[in-house]
Amino acid sequence: MAKLWGGRFSKNTNELVDAFNASIEFDKRLYHEDIRGSIAHAQMLGKCGIIPAEDVEKIVAGLETILADIEAGNFSFEVALEDIHMNIEARLTERIGVAGARLHTARSRNDQVALDMHMYMKREIVEIGELLLQFEKALLAVAQKHDRTLMPGYTHLQRAQPITFAHHLLAYFNMLQRDFRRLQGVWSGADMMPLGAGAIAGTTFPIDRFDVAEQLNFGSVYANSMDAVSDRDYIIEFLSFASVLMMHMSRLSEEICLWSSTEFGFIELDDAFATGSSMMPQKKNPDIAELVRGKTGRVYGHLQAMLVTAKGLPLTYNKDLQEDKEGFFDAVDTVKFSLAVYSDMISTMTVNVEKMEQAVSKDFSNATDLADYLVRKGLPFRQAHEVVGKCVAYAIHQGKFLPEISLEEYKTFSALFEEDLLEALQPENCVAARTSYGGPAFSENAKQFSRGDVLLAEQQVVLDDLKARI
Amino acid sequence: MAKLWGGRFSKNTNELVDAFNASIEFDKRLYHEDIRGSIAHAQMLGKCGIIPAEDVEKIVAGLETILADIEAGNFSFEVALEDIHMNIEARLTERIGVAGARLHTARSRNDQVALDMHMYMKREIVEIGELLLQFEKALLAVAQKHDRTLMPGYTHLQRAQPITFAHHLLAYFNMLQRDFRRLQGVWSGADMMPLGAGAIAGTTFPIDRFDVAEQLNFGSVYANSMDAVSDRDYIIEFLSFASVLMMHMSRLSEEICLWSSTEFGFIELDDAFATGSSMMPQKKNPDIAELVRGKTGRVYGHLQAMLVTAKGLPLTYNKDLQEDKEGFFDAVDTVKFSLAVYSDMISTMTVNVEKMEQAVSKDFSNATDLADYLVRKGLPFRQAHEVVGKCVAYAIHQGKFLPEISLEEYKTFSALFEEDLLEALQPENCVAARTSYGGPAFSENAKQFSRGDVLLAEQQVVLDDLKARI
Amino acid sequence: MAKLWGGRFSKNTNELVDAFNASIEFDKRLYHEDIRGSIAHAQMLGKCGIIPAEDVEKIVAGLETILADIEAGNFSFEVALEDIHMNIEARLTERIGVAGARLHTARSRNDQVALDMHMYMKREIVEIGELLLQFEKALLAVAQKHDRTLMPGYTHLQRAQPITFAHHLLAYFNMLQRDFRRLQGVWSGADMMPLGAGAIAGTTFPIDRFDVAEQLNFGSVYANSMDAVSDRDYIIEFLSFASVLMMHMSRLSEEICLWSSTEFGFIELDDAFATGSSMMPQKKNPDIAELVRGKTGRVYGHLQAMLVTAKGLPLTYNKDLQEDKEGFFDAVDTVKFSLAVYSDMISTMTVNVEKMEQAVSKDFSNATDLADYLVRKGLPFRQAHEVVGKCVAYAIHQGKFLPEISLEEYKTFSALFEEDLLEALQPENCVAARTSYGGPAFSENAKQFSRGDVLLAEQQVVLDDLKARI
Amino acid sequence: MAKLWGGRFSKNTNELVDAFNASIEFDKRLYHEDIRGSIAHAQMLGKCGIIPAEDVEKIVAGLETILADIEAGNFSFEVALEDIHMNIEARLTERIGVAGARLHTARSRNDQVALDMHMYMKREIVEIGELLLQFEKALLAVAQKHDRTLMPGYTHLQRAQPITFAHHLLAYFNMLQRDFRRLQGVWSGADMMPLGAGAIAGTTFPIDRFDVAEQLNFGSVYANSMDAVSDRDYIIEFLSFASVLMMHMSRLSEEICLWSSTEFGFIELDDAFATGSSMMPQKKNPDIAELVRGKTGRVYGHLQAMLVTAKGLPLTYNKDLQEDKEGFFDAVDTVKFSLAVYSDMISTMTVNVEKMEQAVSKDFSNATDLADYLVRKGLPFRQAHEVVGKCVAYAIHQGKFLPEISLEEYKTFSALFEEDLLEALQPENCVAARTSYGGPAFSENAKQFSRGDVLLAEQQVVLDDLKARI
Repeated sequence: MAKLWGGRFSKNTNELVDAFNASIEFDKRLYHEDIRGSIAHAQMLGKCGIIPAEDVEKIVAGLETILADIEAGNFSFEVALEDIHMNIEARLTERIGVAGARLHTARSRNDQVALDMHMYMKREIVEIGELLLQFEKALLAVAQKHDRTLMPGYTHLQRAQPITFAHHLLAYFNMLQRDFRRLQGVWSGADMMPLGAGAIAGTTFPIDRFDVAEQLNFGSVYANSMDAVSDRDYIIEFLSFASVLMMHMSRLSEEICLWSSTEFGFIELDDAFATGSSMMPQKKNPDIAELVRGKTGRVYGHLQAMLVTAKGLPLTYNKDLQEDKEGFFDAVDTVKFSLAVYSDMISTMTVNVEKMEQAVSKDFSNATDLADYLVRKGLPFRQAHEVVGKCVAYAIHQGKFLPEISLEEYKTFSALFEEDLLEALQPENCVAARTSYGGPAFSENAKQFSRGDVLLAEQQVVLDDLKARI
Repeated sequence: MAKLWGGRFSKNTNELVDAFNASIEFDKRLYHEDIRGSIAHAQMLGKCGIIPAEDVEKIVAGLETILADIEAGNFSFEVALEDIHMNIEARLTERIGVAGARLHTARSRNDQVALDMHMYMKREIVEIGELLLQFEKALLAVAQKHDRTLMPGYTHLQRAQPITFAHHLLAYFNMLQRDFRRLQGVWSGADMMPLGAGAIAGTTFPIDRFDVAEQLNFGSVYANSMDAVSDRDYIIEFLSFASVLMMHMSRLSEEICLWSSTEFGFIELDDAFATGSSMMPQKKNPDIAELVRGKTGRVYGHLQAMLVTAKGLPLTYNKDLQEDKEGFFDAVDTVKFSLAVYSDMISTMTVNVEKMEQAVSKDFSNATDLADYLVRKGLPFRQAHEVVGKCVAYAIHQGKFLPEISLEEYKTFSALFEEDLLEALQPENCVAARTSYGGPAFSENAKQFSRGDVLLAEQQVVLDDLKARI
Repeated sequence: MAKLWGGRFSKNTNELVDAFNASIEFDKRLYHEDIRGSIAHAQMLGKCGIIPAEDVEKIVAGLETILADIEAGNFSFEVALEDIHMNIEARLTERIGVAGARLHTARSRNDQVALDMHMYMKREIVEIGELLLQFEKALLAVAQKHDRTLMPGYTHLQRAQPITFAHHLLAYFNMLQRDFRRLQGVWSGADMMPLGAGAIAGTTFPIDRFDVAEQLNFGSVYANSMDAVSDRDYIIEFLSFASVLMMHMSRLSEEICLWSSTEFGFIELDDAFATGSSMMPQKKNPDIAELVRGKTGRVYGHLQAMLVTAKGLPLTYNKDLQEDKEGFFDAVDTVKFSLAVYSDMISTMTVNVEKMEQAVSKDFSNATDLADYLVRKGLPFRQAHEVVGKCVAYAIHQGKFLPEISLEEYKTFSALFEEDLLEALQPENCVAARTSYGGPAFSENAKQFSRGDVLLAEQQVVLDDLKARI
Repeated sequence: MAKLWGGRFSKNTNELVDAFNASIEFDKRLYHEDIRGSIAHAQMLGKCGIIPAEDVEKIVAGLETILADIEAGNFSFEVALEDIHMNIEARLTERIGVAGARLHTARSRNDQVALDMHMYMKREIVEIGELLLQFEKALLAVAQKHDRTLMPGYTHLQRAQPITFAHHLLAYFNMLQRDFRRLQGVWSGADMMPLGAGAIAGTTFPIDRFDVAEQLNFGSVYANSMDAVSDRDYIIEFLSFASVLMMHMSRLSEEICLWSSTEFGFIELDDAFATGSSMMPQKKNPDIAELVRGKTGRVYGHLQAMLVTAKGLPLTYNKDLQEDKEGFFDAVDTVKFSLAVYSDMISTMTVNVEKMEQAVSKDFSNATDLADYLVRKGLPFRQAHEVVGKCVAYAIHQGKFLPEISLEEYKTFSALFEEDLLEALQPENCVAARTSYGGPAFSENAKQFSRGDVLLAEQQVVLDDLKARI
């Protein structure tokens, strides 16, 4: 098949080259953006008197039938036509003749593909925002249900201090707030309109780039044509956002795996979110959590790949930049899957409240509270820490926990200990007393739930606004 | 030396462990933040009645003398004291006695180090912002000086279309606009106050976290204690920002290397920014550009390292997170050096205007203009492209450039060619005619210079505001 | 569809989970290995008396018809059956009944997939080895053709010293020698037989793992069952090999781009290995070189992804490890494409011998030879370097090259200069005199061609041997 | 201070440039190699008649006093002299006069630094090999001590099948075998002698590179001068080796953290290898394991950084390549620390045998054995798997483990169950019966211990050989 750029060439390209060069296998997912962008471009060319109005009409009608055909599954993409742009334009010209050959006036594939990618990303940002919001809601709902469920808080995977399951989940809720903020940051980079930059240096035709931007709901227009065609910052920003989100998901996944183990036994996943073994009949594996954790590597890899590809490229467009798509598309899919499945998975899991509470009772995680107790009795903190360290060593040696040591024994460590120490050691009291802002106290988390509702409502407003701008 | 956390232990730690565990070699650069943070903490403890006012006075005075000692170079850091926090607190207690032992009341190293890092990053963001602004100014100044300097614009490292050197540099100016926006995004993550989160679960003391935030000019306070001590998003955000910035610098560096080559010969670096060879007497190497390009790898590596380290960590603090510092510090240094040296390097380089213009004259980069010429005469773009492709092939075959082909010869390719085609082929006219927004036309770039001044003024306002909040 | 591991479960899995969990879309490329491995396993089970001989016959025959069906395109893979193993086993049992249900005796999917991957990698190592050898041959042939073609050797992209194009290409030939060595290293890791490790702990059946290894030509057998199912070192080793190879290809690609530029003009790619622009009719872009350079990022990303995924996983198999396939498969394809297309591309490119020689004549790359000249006259090297540095500065100031300076002028810099200095400055002589081992002298490269032929013959022997062991 | 390459320049370099450019802060660790390499170079120059014998004597004597001074701490390195090479050469010339200025004859810093790095790496390979061997010995010793200690083997962090602690540790022992093999592969790349390549194109002096190789115990000599100065494969190979080793260490570290948790309780680290909390008196944290896991990110980052830096560099030396050192040095230190501390840590940890065995008794990890039992009674495996899956579901429902179900109950699932089923369910029997090669059977592991001793002895021989070649 003749190449659309073949005028200067005396030979056809090598077959291997065609296969290597072609991007249609993965860029066909941009068909909707490509057509919508071409329609806006054609309309603008018409308004500016660059192509005749009747050609505009033919182009728009032709593109609309192609869109309908693709969506109906009646369109066959050709590798020989390299990419989505050429596939659509070639078909258009077949159908409407010479008017089709006017569509590419005043643009190049360099700015066209950049336009498609920006539009596509804007749409995906909204979809991901909605899935993120849904997951945040699910987290908040489970947290609210477990506002009194005591469990140990861990540092270094060692039981540290008593908290509630609500408090633990709210930590993730707060991480996701930052993810939402970063997603909005990605929007800033995606919402720039590149069309009209041509291959590199704009065009001599009297185009109106702001008209195209308005038709397509873009917030801004690239102010330098060379930047417009060689910029991939927005892809990297998306992949950075996705990497941090997946990092958060990997941490939660690690905890889901830990909590599902026999040793912890804190939760049981619903059968719909677990799988078995082909060899061991008893197994119930938290595969989803493991996969999400594992796929974190893949998203990091895509970020790194794009950074590497862009490094050291002279301006402007170089073919290397075609590598911006597969990793990005895969990251989009991975993030969407992860958020969607997690929303359902955590909503349906069973929490073993008793097992959690037991873990916090037979434990030394109340030791800090005993130190604080001594501080309140007047001992400087560093000395209190030292005294309680010795009490813990003594208790371990005796095979006991702190509430099981007698007051007489305590008094050998410090004369400040009195009857009321037992109260300070009750896990429920330990939690209730931690009323510092952001602390695990029941009263504090109640405030955080209200704050959470407000934040979610605000995010919904943001998303509705963005949705109106895709 | 006795460990401050040693109460529970029956043995000293292994020496190798001490060396491995200690962070004082690199975290000592946080001394200023550590002391300022401790003063704010002590003041708050006093206000809230948690420690006596006279202890507060002693603590503040003691910390101020330690600060003075460190800045005077009269303070020796001890590896046995592990980190900057312990080094300062131990010395404080030596000097002021029991009051010093009260300083750590209601905090842990987990929230303390997080506070230091947030404060440190805020300061560095401002410094980097200033260097970025300075570099943008330098770029804009060189661009303005070369608003009429013609040169080829490249795609695929092939000459594509005529542009100006100003237009080329403005592409970088626009990239840096996005870097500035991202730097502001990093601020959002850095400007959250973690102190009061304790080790994981806040504290039972009646602290006032908002008071500390106000003393230290923080815009917000972490709303969940577990999140506060395990969050490293802000480090990753910084490293993402730094990676993209370095990617931009690596692209410019590649171009500096190309332009400095004998083959391009577009610029000559000032002797102060080049080095020679120990073996080849004639060499003048663009080492700085190469180093900046090379150091891009290092910054990418730090981003990857931090993402890897954080991946799959269960809540909350795990010792892995101590790995957040060296890479971050090194990225800060690398970015600052790169921006500072580039500002001077591009301001002092010599631009070989003649060589650039020659490159755009003896060349086919005006071929698109010839196609546009035919389109304006009524030929559909795709056909015009085909015709001009053949003209180019013909010219190459004849060993000529496009202006050297006669009108008769042109007419064999299309009857639409007329006398005025030569005008369309003049590089200066090619550039002047590309008046689409963001295009290389002289008139367009004049607007971009004005826009640039406005943007720089706005950034200065932003920076002044941030500076008041560190 | 009922899951093969569903006995313990009371619910079906969530649909999203099935899609997320399934690997059939990408692991179907393992069908040949899966079937061949199953046949070997069945044969062994029969020999060891674990399943009846007639069942073995049915299984083998059944698997062979499935293999034929797949290769004829008459097999439809089902997502509900998750992966290639279940797809084949389920179909087998449909066809041959209860004998099929015996095939999975004494194995698990954990060791089965590990077997398939090892076998697949061994096959790909041989194919890649052959493509590598073919590329080495192509390089050597082009080098031999240009054993007298002078060109500048570059450091810092500055002309450094005269060399030949042959010498330059031989540098890549030597890099590829190391790639070949590393490929052999990858074989060591791939050539270990995991089957019989079961899910984690071997089996209670009296299997003979060495029999399976012998049937499938494996050189060794995993000596620990837990290691066998959780090892992904071989994947990482392959990706490390591929990353370094692509790094080499990216360097050559960069040079192909430079040499194809108008500024260098050293080579012209055949039309079959270049593409045009949709907008600019004159463009002939070295897309292949750019793509190979760009795809380097992708392969680095896959390496990083696999390292990240494996990091911190407790033993043994975790679902995260399913992420070992897509990146690896993509790296295999990328490497094979790159090598194949480069072999043809460099064999068909036109070398502009005249342009290269011109670059080395009008140049200062002979300055070191002038310094060496002075050393041979008795001046210590450091002083000679200093003297010639001044001569170069003088020549630049005069707008001349070194051979254009008169002897009188030279004598003002050092009395040691004599008539014979001009001879030392001839590029051809500069090259011819560099007879140190591995140097660019014509005589030296002649030896390197002979050495190259020997190395290629040795590699062919190695490959033939490996081929016999897949 | 005057630059040694300054002849051609009219200005001094910018101060910032000097700081940025200088590598002395980190490359001074190469002093020993630099001096030893220079001595060999000088000896060779003398033998080949390139410099006078008396100069050789002066150079050698001068370098030896410098070496002595450095080792005695009496040498001050100057940033203005850029790097270790210039620091030493400048001092040498100060001391011995004009003979010093002859040392750099027929070499360049490009080949000199490559020589130093190769020599340094060879030394570190041996040191790392010894630490690796020591750690393998420690692992094997702990495994042998626990050859009868039962514990659950895990997949998906779910208890899968009974194994021994010995078997688990042997998995790591086998990973380390591959690490040792890869370390030997790194040697191949390090053991190539680059000196004599000059800056890029060898030299016109009649040097003998093989003599230098022999003096310095190199196994081979670079066969292409351009390759010799631009090759960084050996650094990447080292970093790949280090990344995989750290990946293994991160997996073991993850397990150390899990096993040290209250929930698992399988081990207790010696106090010398754990640390406490500044706030929580009861904490005993496995910091070392966490740090090693965390530092895995750092080593991955260094690998990525070097790959990125080398990507797309045209031949030959570019200043970017100076970035090869810091990451590599840091990886060396990290790997050595990790291996050294782990050897001691695992040797001194307490294994809670009782807790491990309890975990394997009250558990379903014997379910596969019950399925195998049915297979031995004639049921096809897939059906046996199904039956046992139902038994497990029944048992869970009854709140019992498999040995607690009565024979009558079993018979409702399959008539094949008989009295002897209880025996099959004993964890000790489950383990003992898994006699397949590499399986956990006590008898199998006994063989693996013997094999381990043989492997260690072989490694010692390899190391002794390498040690003789540094």
